[in-house]
Amino acid sequence: MLANFYPVILAGGRGTRFWPLSRKKRAKQLLALDGKDTMIQQTVARLLPLSSAKQFWIITNEDLRPEIVGQLRKLRPEHVIAEPMGRNTAPAIGLAAFILRRENPDAVIGLFPSDHVVVNETRFREVLSEGVEIAAAGENIVVLGVEPSRPETGYGYIQAGSLASGNARHVLRFTEKPNAERAAEFVRSGNFYWNSGMFLWSATTLANALTEHLPKTAELLEKIAADYGTRKFPATFRRLYPRCEDISVDYAVLEPRSAKGEQESNIFCLRADFGWNDLGSWTALHEHHVAKSTSADGNLISSQGIFTLNASGNYVHSPQKFVAVVGVSDIVVIDTEDALLVTTRANSQDVGKVVKFLDEKKLKKLV
Amino acid sequence: MLANFYPVILAGGRGTRFWPLSRKKRAKQLLALDGKDTMIQQTVARLLPLSSAKQFWIITNEDLRPEIVGQLRKLRPEHVIAEPMGRNTAPAIGLAAFILRRENPDAVIGLFPSDHVVVNETRFREVLSEGVEIAAAGENIVVLGVEPSRPETGYGYIQAGSLASGNARHVLRFTEKPNAERAAEFVRSGNFYWNSGMFLWSATTLANALTEHLPKTAELLEKIAADYGTRKFPATFRRLYPRCEDISVDYAVLEPRSAKGEQESNIFCLRADFGWNDLGSWTALHEHHVAKSTSADGNLISSQGIFTLNASGNYVHSPQKFVAVVGVSDIVVIDTEDALLVTTRANSQDVGKVVKFLDEKKLKKLV
Repeated sequence: MLANFYPVILAGGRGTRFWPLSRKKRAKQLLALDGKDTMIQQTVARLLPLSSAKQFWIITNEDLRPEIVGQLRKLRPEHVIAEPMGRNTAPAIGLAAFILRRENPDAVIGLFPSDHVVVNETRFREVLSEGVEIAAAGENIVVLGVEPSRPETGYGYIQAGSLASGNARHVLRFTEKPNAERAAEFVRSGNFYWNSGMFLWSATTLANALTEHLPKTAELLEKIAADYGTRKFPATFRRLYPRCEDISVDYAVLEPRSAKGEQESNIFCLRADFGWNDLGSWTALHEHHVAKSTSADGNLISSQGIFTLNASGNYVHSPQKFVAVVGVSDIVVIDTEDALLVTTRANSQDVGKVVKFLDEKKLKKLV
Repeated sequence: MLANFYPVILAGGRGTRFWPLSRKKRAKQLLALDGKDTMIQQTVARLLPLSSAKQFWIITNEDLRPEIVGQLRKLRPEHVIAEPMGRNTAPAIGLAAFILRRENPDAVIGLFPSDHVVVNETRFREVLSEGVEIAAAGENIVVLGVEPSRPETGYGYIQAGSLASGNARHVLRFTEKPNAERAAEFVRSGNFYWNSGMFLWSATTLANALTEHLPKTAELLEKIAADYGTRKFPATFRRLYPRCEDISVDYAVLEPRSAKGEQESNIFCLRADFGWNDLGSWTALHEHHVAKSTSADGNLISSQGIFTLNASGNYVHSPQKFVAVVGVSDIVVIDTEDALLVTTRANSQDVGKVVKFLDEKKLKKLV
């Protein structure tokens, strides 16, 4: 247990790439994609040994809040905050910082996505413990970086500089999604890490940083935080929050701060060497499962009974049916009550386009 | 109307290659694979202008009989005969011949599969009318041959000889499923036709031929026919029919008879030039539909709403759902209440192996 550690879990995403399983009211983080617990339940479970349940906060939206409260019975429902409208990560995290700074001036906030996978939970908690210590020691920001295994162009990268203390290295720079050439260069250099979206900093550090870099938004958030816990809160929140800037904490705080230079910025990177996977698509989920399974043909089929013939590398989700796969490779089929998706492992990242189409056609039941 | 024409429709097949849509009690001929009527309903409808409804006979099995009677309300239920056990085509057709010879000595039997497609029905009836006339004229057998469009190894072939009268040619020989090399040779020669399974002959001709070539079976069938219409029929049928030889009419009658030489055999071939298709697999069905449709991408999707992106040549059947197909080509997906099939157009003929597996595993609900 780390007494002053407050996990803040961001759970407002839609995860459209898991359509048709994911829907507006049943986003990726609320699905049991890896085991019997949902992604957000797993996120909480792996943090619970480090912090009291009453110190968890969740930031989400109105569509998802009821289901989240239902899935996380151990947490305080009043800590599950639904944004009146999505404003990206800076305001969401900032609000938590201003509220927690009032509650506990020594609070260290851990910021976590709600829908990622961690294979080695013990190592995860070791890394976090080291990070919380660094974050508690002063105006420090700790980012968790994943050693890149491929030149992924869909992630942000962290350039690490010289060694600081323990396993931490100074951070030189943040680079948003690079093109393929630069991504390959980053991976070759050995000094770049994927930005996992996990950060550690004290509430005071974060509140000060926002006041410095986003003064107008910080002022609004401070007013909202002042009303938290009173009857005025919902109205204040609804009135002021939409006026906050729609910007990520990376752009708003981390990039300008890193520009101060590796010694001045006080940003540190810890290696997230605990088997991290953001499960960004059906294909990523398939690979994650296959890596764990002993199936030689690489088929992954959730169903009531299976027949395969000359089939390999397929991912089929049809939990209520008998599934037969004949002479097919590398296909993804997701069968839900009202929608059927047929795609390939190579194309599954395009599934978001189906949701875009359904949004445009106002086929609300299907999104 | 051809007064003495009696269509006999063989409807005992299982059609396992249309699994999971086809099942033991819902075989291919009972499915609406092409339009809103089922295959057997279409078979009857295209023959009704040629014969009175009360002259139709259906030979099927116990599993399918109730559904067939339900689908064909215009026909006489007592003419829908369920074999106590499947005995191939010679006994099935022979039974009809012995019954009909007693009923009308001038009866001409037209033998028809119950699950094939005919595009040009007017031409179909023209060809049949010519054939019935030939069959009525003496001890003649008329077979309908389809001009081969590919070196198919799954069909029987008819070798045509010299021109007889009208459009009819003498038949030289029947050859069962040839290998690929011979099939290619047949197609090149221009004198070979696919055996469509449609035959015309008088009841007397057929009864005589069976008595000649299958005397033991003919005797049994004659006894069964003698009891038809009496209370003894079900018991006699159940007792004697299983003792008939399990053999096709092609092997039992047509091949030995054709060996007599083209003049002696009195077997004639008429060109089935009316757009015939036996719809032997999901792929054949897909091709049949695509040929009729105007879709440029060759996707054929039955669903509630469709989204396609970089997808072509796919066949998806999921009539109750929204279907999205992303980055996939030439895939076949059949979605039913309790089973999901994923295969390719090139592999759909292997679907029978799924049914074999389900039979072996005694997964009776699924077959």
